[in-house]
Amino acid sequence: MKIGIMGTGRMGRGLGRLWADRGYPVMLGSRDLGRAAALAEAMGPNASGGSNQAALAFGDVILLAVPWDTVEALVRSMDGWSGKIVIDCVNALDGAGGASLPGGLSVAEHIATWAAGARVVKAFNGIYFSLLEQPGFSGQAASVFYAGDDAGAKAAVGELIGAIGFAPVDCGPLVAARHLEWLAALWIHLAFRQGWPPDFAFTVLRR
Amino acid sequence: MKIGIMGTGRMGRGLGRLWADRGYPVMLGSRDLGRAAALAEAMGPNASGGSNQAALAFGDVILLAVPWDTVEALVRSMDGWSGKIVIDCVNALDGAGGASLPGGLSVAEHIATWAAGARVVKAFNGIYFSLLEQPGFSGQAASVFYAGDDAGAKAAVGELIGAIGFAPVDCGPLVAARHLEWLAALWIHLAFRQGWPPDFAFTVLRR
Repeated sequence: MKIGIMGTGRMGRGLGRLWADRGYPVMLGSRDLGRAAALAEAMGPNASGGSNQAALAFGDVILLAVPWDTVEALVRSMDGWSGKIVIDCVNALDGAGGASLPGGLSVAEHIATWAAGARVVKAFNGIYFSLLEQPGFSGQAASVFYAGDDAGAKAAVGELIGAIGFAPVDCGPLVAARHLEWLAALWIHLAFRQGWPPDFAFTVLRR
Repeated sequence: MKIGIMGTGRMGRGLGRLWADRGYPVMLGSRDLGRAAALAEAMGPNASGGSNQAALAFGDVILLAVPWDTVEALVRSMDGWSGKIVIDCVNALDGAGGASLPGGLSVAEHIATWAAGARVVKAFNGIYFSLLEQPGFSGQAASVFYAGDDAGAKAAVGELIGAIGFAPVDCGPLVAARHLEWLAALWIHLAFRQGWPPDFAFTVLRR
């Protein structure tokens, strides 16, 4: 399973390094080829750098980790989405700190309309970058809630979640991304409005 | 701290019995005085039954545990809300299973506008009635997330949460009820659309 990453921020770099460390071939894409190459170099022998279009062509799985206000233009600027597994970890907050976009669709549902034929899975949007290196809390793994309409794509994403130590929690079809975007908005509210130290995560208790 | 309960459903009865067992005086309110008296009788010596107006007059804390479509009429039908601590455990789902009401306000914010002078705290809306008797999961308590604008009211509600074995999680001002209503909508989605056995709860992992 090859992974193309769009976004050289902390989530893209952090997840890319972890997956590369686990043996997955990773290509980090950027408009700035020099930046992509330099950052990929630091991610070890399984990582390479390239353009976003090259990362799209390279990956069986594409991680979209760019700011919400740049997503539509980026996605629409490229061809070749059909059949790709797209992990969307993007959050978009409304003016009150919630996650309701106009029209009621989630970020993930929008991406599914822009990336023709892509198999979109919402995942990792509720995980702060600083947790990536430490998914365990006293032996309990933080949950990565995920949602999508394609069973094969979800199986692949579940594998990628588990490979780096998180507990995958399948939340059903892509429409459930609305719930996951609100769950991330709650995390953001607690960390950045209520002042909680960001070293926390949600999980599910079961008997 | 005396507790008036409006709503003789499973949440109202379940919470009332637990609080009465812990020594809090409870009055269970209903339009049906016979039903209120019979159900209160089963809740032990600390519980009594009465009209909803009597329960409002009785309680320092009022638990609102009635269906969303009956809340506005009930609240507006009574006087005497000023100064009362009101626990709102009501959920309202939109057509897609989310929690976005028209205009963007939460249930709790609506109640605060209808119950003049009340100190509204959102709490318990994410806890299924069957968990009330078993708040612990292998030694970890399920979280009750709560939000409100009045510090004294929140302290009282935090005490009532902890008294029955749940872990109170203060999520800040009442506007955060929007997040808590979406969190409950996620629970409802997983239980009733995804078919999870309802014996689960969310919690926060911290280091």
